[in-house]
Amino acid sequence: MKEAISQNTKELENLTVQHRETLNRAVQALHERTFFSQYPEHPSPAIYGEGADQAGLEQYKGQLGKRFEELLQESPEGWAGQEESPYEQEKLNISYPTFSVETLVARGQKAFHVWRKVSPLERAAILVESLERMKGRFFEIAHATMHTTGQAFLMSFQASGPHAADRALEAIAAGYEEQTRFPETQVWEKPMGKFNLKLNKSWKAVPKGLGLVVGCSTFPTWNTVPGMYASLVTGNPVIVKPHPKGVLPIAIVIAEVQKVLAEYGLDPNICQLAVDPDDKLITKELAEHEAIKLIDYTGGTAFGNYLEGLKGKTVFTEKAGVNSIILDSAEDLDKVVQNLAFSLTLYSGQMCTAPQNFFIPANGVTVAGEQVPYEEVVNKLAEAVKGLVNNPKAGPHVLGAIQNQLTQQRVKDLENGNGRSVLTTCDVANPAFANARICSPVLYEVDATEKEQYSQELFGPIALIIKTKDTAESIHLAQEMAMQHGAISCGAYTTDPAIKEEIMDQMGLAGTPVSFNLTGGIYVNQNASFSDFHVTGGNPAGNASFTNPEFVIKRFTWVGFREPAAN
Amino acid sequence: MKEAISQNTKELENLTVQHRETLNRAVQALHERTFFSQYPEHPSPAIYGEGADQAGLEQYKGQLGKRFEELLQESPEGWAGQEESPYEQEKLNISYPTFSVETLVARGQKAFHVWRKVSPLERAAILVESLERMKGRFFEIAHATMHTTGQAFLMSFQASGPHAADRALEAIAAGYEEQTRFPETQVWEKPMGKFNLKLNKSWKAVPKGLGLVVGCSTFPTWNTVPGMYASLVTGNPVIVKPHPKGVLPIAIVIAEVQKVLAEYGLDPNICQLAVDPDDKLITKELAEHEAIKLIDYTGGTAFGNYLEGLKGKTVFTEKAGVNSIILDSAEDLDKVVQNLAFSLTLYSGQMCTAPQNFFIPANGVTVAGEQVPYEEVVNKLAEAVKGLVNNPKAGPHVLGAIQNQLTQQRVKDLENGNGRSVLTTCDVANPAFANARICSPVLYEVDATEKEQYSQELFGPIALIIKTKDTAESIHLAQEMAMQHGAISCGAYTTDPAIKEEIMDQMGLAGTPVSFNLTGGIYVNQNASFSDFHVTGGNPAGNASFTNPEFVIKRFTWVGFREPAAN
Repeated sequence: MKEAISQNTKELENLTVQHRETLNRAVQALHERTFFSQYPEHPSPAIYGEGADQAGLEQYKGQLGKRFEELLQESPEGWAGQEESPYEQEKLNISYPTFSVETLVARGQKAFHVWRKVSPLERAAILVESLERMKGRFFEIAHATMHTTGQAFLMSFQASGPHAADRALEAIAAGYEEQTRFPETQVWEKPMGKFNLKLNKSWKAVPKGLGLVVGCSTFPTWNTVPGMYASLVTGNPVIVKPHPKGVLPIAIVIAEVQKVLAEYGLDPNICQLAVDPDDKLITKELAEHEAIKLIDYTGGTAFGNYLEGLKGKTVFTEKAGVNSIILDSAEDLDKVVQNLAFSLTLYSGQMCTAPQNFFIPANGVTVAGEQVPYEEVVNKLAEAVKGLVNNPKAGPHVLGAIQNQLTQQRVKDLENGNGRSVLTTCDVANPAFANARICSPVLYEVDATEKEQYSQELFGPIALIIKTKDTAESIHLAQEMAMQHGAISCGAYTTDPAIKEEIMDQMGLAGTPVSFNLTGGIYVNQNASFSDFHVTGGNPAGNASFTNPEFVIKRFTWVGFREPAAN
Repeated sequence: MKEAISQNTKELENLTVQHRETLNRAVQALHERTFFSQYPEHPSPAIYGEGADQAGLEQYKGQLGKRFEELLQESPEGWAGQEESPYEQEKLNISYPTFSVETLVARGQKAFHVWRKVSPLERAAILVESLERMKGRFFEIAHATMHTTGQAFLMSFQASGPHAADRALEAIAAGYEEQTRFPETQVWEKPMGKFNLKLNKSWKAVPKGLGLVVGCSTFPTWNTVPGMYASLVTGNPVIVKPHPKGVLPIAIVIAEVQKVLAEYGLDPNICQLAVDPDDKLITKELAEHEAIKLIDYTGGTAFGNYLEGLKGKTVFTEKAGVNSIILDSAEDLDKVVQNLAFSLTLYSGQMCTAPQNFFIPANGVTVAGEQVPYEEVVNKLAEAVKGLVNNPKAGPHVLGAIQNQLTQQRVKDLENGNGRSVLTTCDVANPAFANARICSPVLYEVDATEKEQYSQELFGPIALIIKTKDTAESIHLAQEMAMQHGAISCGAYTTDPAIKEEIMDQMGLAGTPVSFNLTGGIYVNQNASFSDFHVTGGNPAGNASFTNPEFVIKRFTWVGFREPAAN
């Protein structure tokens, strides 16, 4: 491998020159925190080429029923695949190579000693190059995402393509910056009176070791690439264990990473895909392996807590959260409920940032100085959801399909709960997919005193309307939910600067970002790379924090060396 | 309190102007990493004033047998004190106010809501001011340190005074920089084709909550102030729980912090001293209290591991380590053994950075091209220690006294172990202190195969000479000890660039800094603020890592807020 590296030194140097500007611009964007995007989110032919969508669809279809042969991981020990389309409710019948945990770890450990010796700049350049290759497959990834997650096409394209690539670039930029933030070498010279003590010093950012990245079923690339690229840029090889139901989108990304690695003479096992054999889940065995030093995880709370409890690992999690909306006052209630209805309906609430608990004071909401009664606010919200869902030009495209039957079941089960139903789920047809698993949002009313009703995440298109004494109680309960059960987003509507300040203060203590007074084309669910920090670790929802400095610096250790210098 | 803050706003602003340059210079030093010191280490009258030493001694003596009344913590619930001088082997009879855990926590929580609203710059300015006040008491702190730790006067002055203050400034600078590294506000503007989506965004570094700082008996300020100031600058009030045998030095520092806080209208309980009542240790009760979110700890491994295992806390530890010396080759063996003898003898090896395991190849060490046999190297080292210890002008001043009788006992107990004694401890008299508890270094020889003999920290003046097959085995064993049992320093002597590279690589993987070929006036035990990272978390010796960015950013959470902006 050493020979291969030296043969490829010149090519690698060229690659660093080629991507240096992108990297510098991305580092700059991290600190500016205004809008920045390297990968355009609009799936237009003007940007991505005529016929790119059709070609991507055909590539996706061409993979159905076949073995995924693109990976450079040699000698598969088996083949497995369990994906099925929420739109077709049929199996994709794609199978992926499988490997034992021992094989994965042994190959990862070998790759570690190659990858850790590649400089941070070279690693960053290789990883940026992999994103450029990924860009060429955004449409294929989009169709793969649709038919594994149930997201509508536009979200599939944006979330799994350009937005994910931007999140990956953000992690690369942050990792590159942190590793190059201190001098590599320095002469330390201490005046001692008659002479100077002089030491040559050097510092290395030493990677921690093998990383494991555990993906989820609803955002197979968006939630996977930040941890994956953060570990890679800091010199740690990764084993990516996707959710068995959402493999193809990330398999395509990993195939591109492996191809770039191989082109530059590096071991493709620096980035391995680890699919569970059909009859055996391997995540626990992988996570507990002593060679695994870093874990990135998106998914349920119980498994996340188990991972966080493992000794000797650095663990980044994104778990369940209970997201709140606080309604106090507004200028235009119609615009407010339209915005909220969209947030609720978008991908049928299957987002970690989707709102769930809507706190509304018993005496209603102040709208342009007038008090609108509680019942009217609730009805307006329900009507807005109905209007959106039943609009054939919008409904199916916003809702998408339900990824997991259990989510559908959860929506139905609620009818037997203690809440008063405000809006039941209704049949929505998707003209393009007659068999799509669709489920429109349900609204239930509960009282603020019925805390057990709203103290957990009800993943899916489920909203709870919680009647509170006043906004002070709404804030208190939203904070309590976030502190005790976690929260990833919060939306608040108020025209009162003092209440706004109070919400910022109280939700800030609960480590929860707040979007105020959103109306129009921006939603509480959305999270912009290079500007919005995601998760950040201030409450039980997790500590994945892409991408603030903590997300990358915990992946390596600073080690210093020193030696007397000639005077 | 709010009124008090507004009354003091102008004064606080002036203070930020006054200390801004110091702060900026310190931030710059963090990134230059060459020699920087704000507080001169030389205890000379030219710097600290004529009679400063004598005045400090008198202040120290004036405190003996009395209550320590300087703190601004109201209504003590008791008085306690257990300090005794290793030089006099007599009690100091100083008593400190004690408080119940509930009182300490309640006051800390109240102070939290004051302190977290003070800006990072203002907090930094207040803390720098407290170091300026501390500077005026360096000599008093030095004598207090001598008579609690047993350090010789010069080390007491330097380690507890200027070096500690520099370490505190380093933490302040790093914390200030990290909290101001991203914009406080920004307009995020996303082009949408026909219009721009425009959001006003702001971000806050939200402190985690109450911090607990647990001090050790040998470095009562040097090991305490980094965590204490790191928590404080990031907005977290602290409760400082010193070792019962080493209170006075840090009590003086805390008294100065409290006075500055009070002068600027802030609650002095932002920084509380928590001394154990004589009949009750309170560290566990404090650490387990759910209000405590941050813990800094220096001390034994068992208690450190217990703290690291507590749920819902961010914990920084400095625990035991097994530090190695790797002897391969040198230009001048005499200079090498003199340097090592000093490192072993300095403060009788009661330093976390003191060397313990000396790996020497069975076929000896190459010196200026000639092979010096193993036995000769060992004898030279023993002779160098004897020469230093028995030099009346140097010995007592380098050795200091033994802080804890158990350390003395450990030295004696080893005589009954399996090692072959190369050098036994000898009586050394300190002309100034006839009753001083003194114990010179012992050297024991063990074979590389007797791993259980050298796999733990033997705190105190104890060196194990380990005969290895060759340097490759020395490196392998030094790495294994660091990885399995922790290490905070490593010294290596080699004239072979390839071996040097190999040692850097292997000890780097073990997260252990390496000093190469030290001779003359610089020792493996020494650790320079603003240049050398300390501990850094790469092995079981701890993760206190003062001061790299990780040491401060884990003490707060980034939280973002956003709202549509007028177009």
